[in-house]
Amino acid sequence: MIQNDAIVALATPSGAGAISIIRVSGQDAIQIGASVFKSIKNKDLTQQKTHTLHLGHIIDEGKTLDEVLISIFKGPNSYTGENTIEISCHGSTYIQQQIIQLLLRKGCRMADAGEFTLRAFLNGKLDLSQAEAVADLISSDNEASHQIAMQQMRGGFSNEIAKLREELLNFASLIELELDFAEEDVEFADRTQFHELLNRIEFVLKRLIDSFAVGNVIKNGIPVAIVGEPNVGKSTLLNALLNEERAIVSDIAGTTRDTVEDELNIGGIGFRFIDTAGIRETKDVVESIGIQKTFEKIEQAQVVLYLFESLKFKVSGSEYITEIEKVKNKYPLKPLVIVINKSDLISAEETQSLLQQLETLNLKQILISAKQKTGIDELKNTLLSFVNTGALRNNETIVTNTRHYDSLLKALDEIQKVKFGLESKLSSDLMALDIKEALYHFGLITGQVTNDELLGNIFANFCIGK
Amino acid sequence: MIQNDAIVALATPSGAGAISIIRVSGQDAIQIGASVFKSIKNKDLTQQKTHTLHLGHIIDEGKTLDEVLISIFKGPNSYTGENTIEISCHGSTYIQQQIIQLLLRKGCRMADAGEFTLRAFLNGKLDLSQAEAVADLISSDNEASHQIAMQQMRGGFSNEIAKLREELLNFASLIELELDFAEEDVEFADRTQFHELLNRIEFVLKRLIDSFAVGNVIKNGIPVAIVGEPNVGKSTLLNALLNEERAIVSDIAGTTRDTVEDELNIGGIGFRFIDTAGIRETKDVVESIGIQKTFEKIEQAQVVLYLFESLKFKVSGSEYITEIEKVKNKYPLKPLVIVINKSDLISAEETQSLLQQLETLNLKQILISAKQKTGIDELKNTLLSFVNTGALRNNETIVTNTRHYDSLLKALDEIQKVKFGLESKLSSDLMALDIKEALYHFGLITGQVTNDELLGNIFANFCIGK
Repeated sequence: MIQNDAIVALATPSGAGAISIIRVSGQDAIQIGASVFKSIKNKDLTQQKTHTLHLGHIIDEGKTLDEVLISIFKGPNSYTGENTIEISCHGSTYIQQQIIQLLLRKGCRMADAGEFTLRAFLNGKLDLSQAEAVADLISSDNEASHQIAMQQMRGGFSNEIAKLREELLNFASLIELELDFAEEDVEFADRTQFHELLNRIEFVLKRLIDSFAVGNVIKNGIPVAIVGEPNVGKSTLLNALLNEERAIVSDIAGTTRDTVEDELNIGGIGFRFIDTAGIRETKDVVESIGIQKTFEKIEQAQVVLYLFESLKFKVSGSEYITEIEKVKNKYPLKPLVIVINKSDLISAEETQSLLQQLETLNLKQILISAKQKTGIDELKNTLLSFVNTGALRNNETIVTNTRHYDSLLKALDEIQKVKFGLESKLSSDLMALDIKEALYHFGLITGQVTNDELLGNIFANFCIGK
Repeated sequence: MIQNDAIVALATPSGAGAISIIRVSGQDAIQIGASVFKSIKNKDLTQQKTHTLHLGHIIDEGKTLDEVLISIFKGPNSYTGENTIEISCHGSTYIQQQIIQLLLRKGCRMADAGEFTLRAFLNGKLDLSQAEAVADLISSDNEASHQIAMQQMRGGFSNEIAKLREELLNFASLIELELDFAEEDVEFADRTQFHELLNRIEFVLKRLIDSFAVGNVIKNGIPVAIVGEPNVGKSTLLNALLNEERAIVSDIAGTTRDTVEDELNIGGIGFRFIDTAGIRETKDVVESIGIQKTFEKIEQAQVVLYLFESLKFKVSGSEYITEIEKVKNKYPLKPLVIVINKSDLISAEETQSLLQQLETLNLKQILISAKQKTGIDELKNTLLSFVNTGALRNNETIVTNTRHYDSLLKALDEIQKVKFGLESKLSSDLMALDIKEALYHFGLITGQVTNDELLGNIFANFCIGK
């Protein structure tokens, strides 16, 4: 199934910039490049060393399309493992199109999404989980998710899995060997050592599986719902957190009818703030749809901020407490923080009394002024305290990929079957089957076991040009 | 004024793609690169040859930011003429920012718009008109404007100007020489030859100045206004011409209240189609503002298409003719084409009669069906016939830059003064002054004469990273 026809794609984002990169990979990549390129120094591109750069012009039937730099990478010393050229041209969309069309006429075909990385995988330059990390790396937008992707791309995760797989494989072959000598009733595989190994594998798998919860929120950002009655300053708070004017801030109650989501990077962790329409009782149809949405968003959020105005507490305090209790009872395990806005507008005594009344709720309370931007740092630190960054700090392997998570769960299931078999003195031949299944699931993660459909699914999510 | 501190910028369009390029130029560019880079093969970046590529990691205080390829270009063999590195990193915005921030901490500063090209100019890698062509090349979006920019970047225009300047300079020095021997009344400069040269320069300048009109429309696209009563199919025609669904097509008369502009590439020439709100009489305030806008757009357009429906001609034919005459009388020199839409819905006899009635207007008539896409090619060819592409076909130098145009006009003025002086036997010392002025304006075009303000104006229009 390995193809090495020449594929071409724009590798840089589309649109105008100073430079664009057009990437060609395949056995004939350098020849094709040479057929459209005239070096300034009359060099023959096909005779140049790998990892060199050459200035010249792209010529289409005597007409100069652009002055370009061509980088040459000879297989296997390239990203894909094949001969590759990268044409660094001027960044006009017109030039990009003209050069790509010329290369298509010269025998290239357009690359599919992720096809360069797929080839890198097929040529053994990356294992599958490393290839997947490339896509994560490109889409990472905060320090934590970048760090996880980087670690995975450099093989941290694959190494851990591959090591376990190898040890298991050792035992598997010993047990297979026992099958050959079944009549003699020998035990090549030390059962005590094997039990130890299974325990160790189980422990690692469980840790990796547990890390997925952390990995997933880090990869996608931790969703935080901001709840409170309309016009309480949710949008202003969001802006204070974001430090810019993204949400529409208006004085008309109920402005935020659609939920607005925005991302903020706090201490290297991505948070997704979800501005909701509040949960006050209403007869307005549009508003009531908004309230329903608010509950849906609370459902999805990992943390809920309940926001109200200090000044309004005297009048509506009991109402607020009822609403907070409603949220607390509906989602007892979800971290809920009471945020009191416009706290600069009431006296010290009033503040004291307010906090006392809220104390019965037994929730974290934070006094802020979204407008004056006071209390915002305390709020940020509180948010950060809900994130379990222990694994991240200890530089442990964190699973972020649903496919890996799925394989790990299945592998754990098989390992537990093997362990149960071992403990209940199951015959070697039956145990061997379960071990094979576990090995299969390990192999799926790193790509030692694979099939076209799996590869298709993985690489279809890549961008073209990678 | 030549600076060679290290400047850094993203050279590829912002946003996520497979690859991004970060460019660093300056005396210390390679050292700075080496200070953040760890080669896979433990190579010392500062010891590498020019035009080579190196795989490794960008390291920020022990933390790996990304796996990258670094290109090395040693001055003067680089775009800027200085030491330059290009870091080819993964295309995430987060990674781009992290690497650029690291480089800033290592002693780079953010490049100003066009600063790389400014340095190329200051280091003699490009003359000024070539540098300006770089910006044109990046923004070119059709064959004609691309061809002109490419020709100019390769020095076509500068060479022509520089050659004239040199010949003029020769005569200038002979005339200066005469001034030294003023008492002896000798003529070193052959007056007949000089007159011939002045004629030749005048001829070339006039040709270049004339080319500006063509160059300008080619660079910016030729504006074509589509005029007709509401709901006649202007948007559908625009879509047929554009071959896609860009304008809003609706059945409600007067949908197109704002003028929609769209670009189309016909035979390598860019056309800007301006969909107008029509010019029918109305009492609706919004509509009447639309009509006023329509006239403004006709004013700006180089070609006007008057569009109506075949079926409606029986009822409103005389009205149409009045309107067409109104446009024709108001803009007698502007090409006006009558386009009859839905021509497939009337019989051959009806068509015959319709065309006969319109004949008195003595205008080009084209039968189309925007929906069935018939007659569209004839319309396209008609549009193309209004463009003077002669100069383009003959590969002549075309001026597109307003600054050049301005300098050419001033140079012509001075040359004509010199010529008049020569014809009226003006004294050499006075003629020498006018020659100097002409030389000055020639020099402004190529950058042989320059000043900070001029350079600031030119390069401020560049994108960052070029």
